[in-house]
Amino acid sequence: VISVQKSKQIVLLRRPDGPIRKEDFGLEEVPLPPIGDGQFLVRNEYLSLDAGFRQWMNAGASDNYLQEMPLGKPVQSIVLGQVIESRNPRYPVDAWIMGRTAWESFSIADGSDLMSVLEVDADLPPYEYLAALGPAGMTAYFGLFRIGQPKEGDTLLVSAAAGGVGSLVGQLGKIAGCTTIGTSSSAEKCQWLRDELGYDHSVNYRLDVPVSQQVRELAPEGVDVFFDNVGGEMLDQALECLALNARIVLCGAVSQYEKTGKHTGITNLWQLVTKRARAEGFMFSDYVDEYPRAIGELSQWIREGKLRSPVEMTSGIENTADAFCRMLAGKTRGKCLVTV
Amino acid sequence: VISVQKSKQIVLLRRPDGPIRKEDFGLEEVPLPPIGDGQFLVRNEYLSLDAGFRQWMNAGASDNYLQEMPLGKPVQSIVLGQVIESRNPRYPVDAWIMGRTAWESFSIADGSDLMSVLEVDADLPPYEYLAALGPAGMTAYFGLFRIGQPKEGDTLLVSAAAGGVGSLVGQLGKIAGCTTIGTSSSAEKCQWLRDELGYDHSVNYRLDVPVSQQVRELAPEGVDVFFDNVGGEMLDQALECLALNARIVLCGAVSQYEKTGKHTGITNLWQLVTKRARAEGFMFSDYVDEYPRAIGELSQWIREGKLRSPVEMTSGIENTADAFCRMLAGKTRGKCLVTV
Repeated sequence: VISVQKSKQIVLLRRPDGPIRKEDFGLEEVPLPPIGDGQFLVRNEYLSLDAGFRQWMNAGASDNYLQEMPLGKPVQSIVLGQVIESRNPRYPVDAWIMGRTAWESFSIADGSDLMSVLEVDADLPPYEYLAALGPAGMTAYFGLFRIGQPKEGDTLLVSAAAGGVGSLVGQLGKIAGCTTIGTSSSAEKCQWLRDELGYDHSVNYRLDVPVSQQVRELAPEGVDVFFDNVGGEMLDQALECLALNARIVLCGAVSQYEKTGKHTGITNLWQLVTKRARAEGFMFSDYVDEYPRAIGELSQWIREGKLRSPVEMTSGIENTADAFCRMLAGKTRGKCLVTV
Repeated sequence: VISVQKSKQIVLLRRPDGPIRKEDFGLEEVPLPPIGDGQFLVRNEYLSLDAGFRQWMNAGASDNYLQEMPLGKPVQSIVLGQVIESRNPRYPVDAWIMGRTAWESFSIADGSDLMSVLEVDADLPPYEYLAALGPAGMTAYFGLFRIGQPKEGDTLLVSAAAGGVGSLVGQLGKIAGCTTIGTSSSAEKCQWLRDELGYDHSVNYRLDVPVSQQVRELAPEGVDVFFDNVGGEMLDQALECLALNARIVLCGAVSQYEKTGKHTGITNLWQLVTKRARAEGFMFSDYVDEYPRAIGELSQWIREGKLRSPVEMTSGIENTADAFCRMLAGKTRGKCLVTV
């Protein structure tokens, strides 16, 4: 019998109107009920901060994945933890679990909520399974290799290149033999892209010179693969820089998640015709059968020193909302995690 | 020695400002110079009217294919004719020629201008090589089969379904085993789509009910392949109706060609992510090596009665501009041609 009686939760207090603020969230402590038959109790060790979840905080949000997050309930999130009590033989005590529950210190689950048992590699820190070997890594890996299909010598453009996914995509592009260009929001982050992540070039999108002009100067032959995490104006400008037969990986649209109305209109889609190019969306979870191979390759590259997994770690579940807001404001680098 | 001395030409007199009018064109008669070494003289029999060429009449138009058409010069076009005099052994007298010259009764060419010698099938009218066996047919065939990749049981949506390309795409979709929905601008054309072209359903986009709503009612499971000839608002609405893993064939954007500024902004591109879908542009001329196979299949379907090739023929080169304007105004059905 476990002595845990209470779980801390970060709840959504009100719908954000534009940029989210930490005041939109609250910290609550709730009693834990006993687990039922088929259930198990997970002590969450790490919480993942994912920009994509921001859109489900808006009123009326609804798509194939999630619905509008309810007010007053813990914020849905991908989390990593260990089973500490179980009445489900598929999820035994001590198993490391990744799944979609919430920003809470303990989760009661029954395995229906995208829960998977991890075979953790003792050479790597467990949180890597929320970073380069987790959703961010799977997104970068399958998005780049399956949708982007880079060839040696291609020019790869990555937006939000300092983010959790973008920081990996640029490095994977180098492994594939591409020339890489990353966009970011400050000179400091641009330098970090080049110095720490091996990007060949970086573009500060906050300069007065339009991104399209900066990219064309760096890549006069055009961009073969554009891995887009930003959407909106960034996507519209990148469309002006495509090479023949370019591939656009539609991964994220962080510039649009804080909008309540329609997304920014994309006016340059016709470039896909003149360049015989394509834009394609994907979800990493469509490739679940291939995770083992991807995780094998990625962890090998990490061990060989070919791939760095930059993580910005925040301590304490009570600081989760602040870290999430800082990330959406572009103030973080790499994959953002919280140690509970 | 040939006695031809003069050629009639339709010239672009002024840049259209919005919808094009026949007054923007003029008819001129010019003397034909003698042909030089390597050249040949073609008597044009049929002129093709292609909505896509409208955009190159705008000021500043420039893309991979053509530049802004010069004022006072014959309007560039795809034409079909016979060689009547030749100083080029690759283009002998009597050969049927398709190429990109202009709206003119005679063309002098040297083979550099996308000229190809046709092996015409005596069972079919020669103009078919500007219609179902020509650019419209190649566009429909490669766009649908290579980019759209329809599978039996798929739902295929075609915009401008009564147009030169759309009138073929719907029929090819039926051959591929799809349920087909065509959009058009009037109840009469919608009926024609169903009665004459075998479309399962048709949508009048001029009704008060939004196209997205009409399509969703006809295809509650979503659209698997959207073959788009229209762009703009039509494309934006179709994005709201996609099935999982949908393919959008970006073929034309006739709603945008008469605009001088930016294209209409597409606000629903994020649907490509939630539906793991793709949008891809193409040009039929990228598949030139495969024309023989496509022409073989298409002419076989025509002979078997599986494929109708609806053509709206206008007589007399002097009526070319009027026919072109009527086509862009949505007043024609099928592939529009002019007999010189």
